[in-house]
Order: sequence, then C-alpha cells, then structure tokens
Amino acid sequence: MRRSRYYLPTLRETPKEAEIISHRLMLRAGMVRQSTAGIYIWLPLGLRVMDKIADLVRDEQNRAGSHEILMPTIQSADLWRKAGRYDDYGPEMLRIKDRQDRDLLYGPTNEEVITDLFANTVTSYRDLPQLLYHIQWKFRDELRPRFGVMRGREFLMKDNYSFDLTPEASRHSYNKMFVSYLRTFARLGLQAIPMEAETGPIGGNLSHEFIIIASTGESAIWCDKSLLERDVLSLAVNYDNEAEVAEIVRSFTEGYYACTDEKHNPELFAKEVPETRRYQGRGIEVGHIFHFGTKYSEPLGAMVSDANGNRVPVQMGSYGIGVSRLVGAIIEACHDEKGICWPAPVAPFQVSLINVRVGNTACDALAEKTMQALQAAGVEVLYDDRDESAGAKFSEADLLGFPWRWVVSPRNADSGTIEIKRRTEDEAQVVPLEQALALLTNSS
Amino acid sequence: MRRSRYYLPTLRETPKEAEIISHRLMLRAGMVRQSTAGIYIWLPLGLRVMDKIADLVRDEQNRAGSHEILMPTIQSADLWRKAGRYDDYGPEMLRIKDRQDRDLLYGPTNEEVITDLFANTVTSYRDLPQLLYHIQWKFRDELRPRFGVMRGREFLMKDNYSFDLTPEASRHSYNKMFVSYLRTFARLGLQAIPMEAETGPIGGNLSHEFIIIASTGESAIWCDKSLLERDVLSLAVNYDNEAEVAEIVRSFTEGYYACTDEKHNPELFAKEVPETRRYQGRGIEVGHIFHFGTKYSEPLGAMVSDANGNRVPVQMGSYGIGVSRLVGAIIEACHDEKGICWPAPVAPFQVSLINVRVGNTACDALAEKTMQALQAAGVEVLYDDRDESAGAKFSEADLLGFPWRWVVSPRNADSGTIEIKRRTEDEAQVVPLEQALALLTNSS
Repeated sequence: MRRSRYYLPTLRETPKEAEIISHRLMLRAGMVRQSTAGIYIWLPLGLRVMDKIADLVRDEQNRAGSHEILMPTIQSADLWRKAGRYDDYGPEMLRIKDRQDRDLLYGPTNEEVITDLFANTVTSYRDLPQLLYHIQWKFRDELRPRFGVMRGREFLMKDNYSFDLTPEASRHSYNKMFVSYLRTFARLGLQAIPMEAETGPIGGNLSHEFIIIASTGESAIWCDKSLLERDVLSLAVNYDNEAEVAEIVRSFTEGYYACTDEKHNPELFAKEVPETRRYQGRGIEVGHIFHFGTKYSEPLGAMVSDANGNRVPVQMGSYGIGVSRLVGAIIEACHDEKGICWPAPVAPFQVSLINVRVGNTACDALAEKTMQALQAAGVEVLYDDRDESAGAKFSEADLLGFPWRWVVSPRNADSGTIEIKRRTEDEAQVVPLEQALALLTNSS
Repeated sequence: MRRSRYYLPTLRETPKEAEIISHRLMLRAGMVRQSTAGIYIWLPLGLRVMDKIADLVRDEQNRAGSHEILMPTIQSADLWRKAGRYDDYGPEMLRIKDRQDRDLLYGPTNEEVITDLFANTVTSYRDLPQLLYHIQWKFRDELRPRFGVMRGREFLMKDNYSFDLTPEASRHSYNKMFVSYLRTFARLGLQAIPMEAETGPIGGNLSHEFIIIASTGESAIWCDKSLLERDVLSLAVNYDNEAEVAEIVRSFTEGYYACTDEKHNPELFAKEVPETRRYQGRGIEVGHIFHFGTKYSEPLGAMVSDANGNRVPVQMGSYGIGVSRLVGAIIEACHDEKGICWPAPVAPFQVSLINVRVGNTACDALAEKTMQALQAAGVEVLYDDRDESAGAKFSEADLLGFPWRWVVSPRNADSGTIEIKRRTEDEAQVVPLEQALALLTNSS
C-alpha cells in the first residue's frame, strides 16, 4: 500500500480528550475517530488490527469445536422479560420502540436470543454438546463513556454459548473455553492470567476473568509469577479429552494466587506465595467466562430429551472476549514513549518502508522494487512515498509501530542495500534486499 | 466438517410464513431463523454464504482502489438534522433516545456520518480522490417485513462513498464503482443489468440500479438480450484510466434498452430493440449507485482547498450492495424443484460427501479417506456421517445445493471408487478417488 493513496489521518497533536495512552495513540495513529459520545468509526489502520484479532479469536473458537453463527444487534424485549432480566438490567441497556410501538433493545449480551434459538432447533441429547458463538456489535449505554474503545458504548464482542446435557459435560465445555482463551491471548502476544471472578448480571456460580498485564491497566493485580512463565502454546491440546483439558485448567487455577483488587487478600498473598514469586502490577480484563446452569434454559424452555426420554433443561455457559477492547488493551500492553509496538500477529502492516529521498532515481527504483518484493512474498507493507522529511517519516513509523522499519536512502540505494530495524530494537543493519527478506521471513 | 457434529437444523416441512422460494429454502436448509419480526439469526451454513459474498464484494471494492473502514450502527441525530434529512426520513428510521435523553438512530445509510468524518480529516485537494466503504448492519423499520432476508429490517450492506474535487472527477469515481459492480455480480455467478434509476431519499441527479435476472424476482424487466451476453470478467480494467472506464460504462448504458416496470415504455422497447434481441423477464435489485454532488458536503462543511487555495465543497457519490439480500437473491436465481444450486464461489461447501452405509467397514474407511483427501486439497466438504437412510441424505444434499455430491456406497467402496455428480446435472460417474479430485480441481 502506498502511503500517498492511503486514508490515514494521523494527528501531530495529542488530543486533549484522551486520558489514557491507548486512546491517545489510536487517535494520533489514525486508527479511530469518535463519531458521537462513546461511539467510534474504525479507520483503515484500526480496522485491519481489529479484523486480525477477530480472525485469530475465530480460529481458536473453531479449533475448540465451536460453530460460528451471527445473531442480530436488535432484540425483542419479550425474550428478556421471559428470562426475567428486562427490568433488572438497568439504564445501560439501550431500550427502543419500533414504529409499531413494540419494545426492542440493542443487545448488550445474547443469552436470551441464543437460548430461544436453541429451544426452537434442538430437541435431543444426541445433538449435544453444542458450542455456538458469534462476533457482533453490542451496546451498553455507559453513563460516562471514556478511555476510547476500552470503554465505548458500541463495541465488538465475541460471545460463545455452550449447551450440554449434564453439569459435568457443561464443566467440560467451560474448561474447553478456558484453555481456548489461554491459547487465544498467547497467540495475540499477550500474557493473560485467569482469575476467579464475580458473575454479575450474567449470573451463575462459576466464573473466571482473563486479565492481561499492562503497566497502565485499569486494575491492580497480585499473582504468582509462575503463572506468567507458562508456555501455553506448546501444549498440544486434544479438546475431546475431558481429563486432559481439566488438568490444564487445574494447573492454572489450583495452588496459584491470582487476584484483582476486587478479591485481593494481602495476608493470604503473603502466606501463599513465596516472596521471590510475588508479582504485583496492573492489568486489563479482556475475557470473561461463566457457567450458569439452567438460569436461562428453564424460563425460556430450552429442553432436550435425555437417553431415558425425560425432558430436561440444558446446562449452559457463556464466554466473552472483548474484540474492539483488545485493540486498546494490546496498545496499553505494547507501546513505548514513541508510539505503538504491535505484536506481529495483529500488526496492521509488517513493514514501514521509508523512501528518504522521493524523486531520487536510485531511491525510487529500489523502494519500488522492495515494495514489490515484499508484496510478492505476501508481506504487508506500507510504503511511505510522500514528499515529506525523513524525520517526519521516521516519527510516523515509530508512532504506527509496525514490527519492521525498512529505509531506502541515497547512502545505500546505489548498492541495492536497505537499512532494516525492528520497532523494538535500537540497532539497525544495512543488508541487501534478499537478505532483508530472508531475515523478515525467518523471524515470523 | 462432519454432519453429525455440525449445527444444521434443517426443516422437513416448508414453513407456512415463507412466501417466496428463497425464504422457504433458507429456512428449510437451516441457513437462518427469524429472531423477531424481520430480524434474523444467521446459522453456520447461512453465515458461510454471507461471509463469502462479503469477501468477494470486498475484494472488488479494494481492486477499484477503495479503502475499508467501519462506521458504527448507532448514529447521532444531530448530524441528520444538520444535513436536513432527520425529519424527512420518515418512520423507516429507527429513532432512539439514550439514557441522557439524546436523540440517536440506527443508521439506515451513512452519508451523514462519513461526510462528517471526511470534514474532520481531509482538508486538501491533494488527498483526493478518496473512496471509502464499509460492510455494516443497517436498520430500516419496514412496516411489513417479509420475504425473509430479502426485505428484513436489520440487514447487511456494503456502502461506499466517493470524495472528489470536481464533478468530472466524481463521475470517474461513479464509473469505477459501476464497473466494479459489473465485475462483482459476474464473479458471484449472476447476470446483472445496470438500469437508470430514481434517486429517492439519497438524492442527486444520476443513479443506476443493478438488477439480476431471477424468474421469481420482484420486478418485471425488459432489456436488450445483448446486455446478458457480455463477458465482463474478460475485461482487464485499469481503474486509473478514466477514458477506458468511461467507455465500459458507455458500452453498457448507451444504445441498449433496459428498464424495470418503473420506467418501462412498451413502444420505445418495440422500436429500439429488434424482436430477436428482446428480453422480458423478472429481476431483483442487488445494487444501487448515486451521484449527488454537494448535497451533504455543503451542509456538513466537508470542504477542501483547491490548487488555488479556494475552499470548495467536495463532490460525492454513494454506492450500495445489499450483502444479506444477495444471499436470498442468489437462491432466487439459482434453484430447482429440489433445492438450492449454489454458484461455486459462494457455496457454503463444495462437496456433499455421503456415506450410504455408515457402520460398513469399507464404506467408513473410504469416506474418511475421501474427507481427508478433500480437506488436504483445501476443498470444503460436509461429510454426512449420520445413521440415516440414503434417501434422506440424498434429499438433504439436493436441498443444501453444494456444487458436487460424492457418494460412497457398498457397491463401490471395495474398489475405492466414488460416485460423483454435479448438483445441476443428472448423470453421475463412478471414478477412483484420485480422478474425482482431479475432476473437481479442474472444474473450479
């Protein structure tokens, strides 16, 4: 992609309204713009990141045996009344009347809609277990939306719902999602810690939230350092094996202290965790999972016949990941004083290609050749072909934070070499194009 | 994918509420379920089709030099008041009040939001032209939602907006989208005819709608048969070449009669089109493009400085494709008495693999081997591994309408051969697995 043709309205000044670093950087890097209070437009650069996060989340959901569907944003209030949550939900629910004066709402979550769908489509235990998810926009009418996409009103969420015959089978579904979340966040380049949590308005008796470490995070956290040193991706998980999945969950939950300020107990922390293994820092919630049994299936009539022909309500859980929130959360976790430092799997482009002297024949030719070579190799490159100063281009590359910066300058263009540097390192090296390609390909 | 594990709630009975064939088939094939009036849940099979359509639309939008963004579903009423459309729009607009009593609405279209975005981000003619699009849910509160996803209330649309300095440049953007639409529908396996159209609530002075041929379509159409015989995809379009793009548009609009009942003139039709070239049939609108100049840029202050430093309002157009509507429209165009006949580019799976005798060792082994071979070749296959009658499996395969049906039966399992048949042909052939794979790969 040529920078001169791209729609990338960066900002030189730090916008005053932005209180936290991710919000400031997303505005400055031209990733989002606010349309109205707590509601954002995703510009091309921001959308690329969000799409990559969604695709990666989707991949791990499918790997765990879930099926993707898509529920609508607008729901009927009747289902919520039937489940008993309509009046309880409070002013965060955006309540709507249509032209026929029927009560609708913009879904803040989808337990009612999917339980009703299930009740209308599945009748036998033979069709269980089932894990159904979607990635869809939600709305919560926050009184004071703030922190950019971290606490917006309209936000993109992945929510999965499990349906099982027995509490034990339902626990296995819960465990599958638990492990799938560990894998998802690890693949995103994040350190995520599962912590026991309150169930809140979703309900139920078992819940974990997944917190990622970020020095600028919203919550104070205390945990056992061992939790941060686990290599999740090296586990070859067989999701059909109940015992194996349960063992992974156990290994992350038993015998390890991990709490946010909500549940932190300083005495217990000191007693349970040896001093050398104590971690105290800050974090951001990016996922939350719930088991709530028959809370929705009973009132909404989601029953199946069991092997003996008895009709029983299905056991359910729900499992959320804040997809749009993760864009901000990753920036909170991955930035420095110059800008964003994207983990490669979610970087909008892999390479900032800078032509220091646009108009210089050798520079233009080498930059074009380099762009084409990168594209041919399937590497996403943003080529800064504008007639701007080298300093402005370097600053912007640091701000945008792609994993690599490749510079073509009059000093090295004649020899066909490129100065390449990783975003997170200070040292650059000057190498021929072929070698640069090899270094990049081997690194990812 | 194994049928036994898939979430595919097909229906044996034709649902009474469904008036048209695509609605009936989508319900029977387990593609969608209605959640509440005119609002649908997309089940895995339906979502696969919609995602493929969206990806293909996206690909052609990008090819024409557009950039993808994502605007929110909820908009501020203030922008609509400023542009003068809020009171005019009528009861199809879903009007909402938030907890602070501010007027919001669920976007039925996005001219206001994107013009405001543009006004806040682009200031110079040097940053033009610009084509920005998104694929996002819209809401139109139809008084009588019907015909399933063809006239639902919540629907997925691709809408693109062009920004240019001059009316001539804006016409080039319009022409680019015109050609891009011809390519898009051709790649979807549809015959689309551009027809001059009214501009309606969008406004402006130039508009075309794109109608696809379907015997069960909503509108009567009359056109010159030559329009149906053009091979759009063989044109190697250079979108930067104004004259070339204009010539393609001219060749589709000048000298060819093409009208819906809205504008049809029987005398003119008889006079202009020789009898052998007269086509009369039915069609469905799947795309609509508009040029409306400064209708939104003036009231919303979307100005740029031109080369002389004068501030001028940008020239705009907008370009819509009904993505969720296309799922129904394609079925209207592609079905027979047994079910759907998907064009390969949007088929949810390419192959229905049927094991006629589940439990038979040779059949099970060959079916497994075949499924793995197909998956290894990157071919999407749904393997019907259920313990059902052959007749039920054959009927379902016809209903779901994937391009190929591959059958493993006791008759041919020992010899390692498979009976393969295209959905649209009657003749089957029995061939070894390798040959079947070669036939499938060469056909697509």
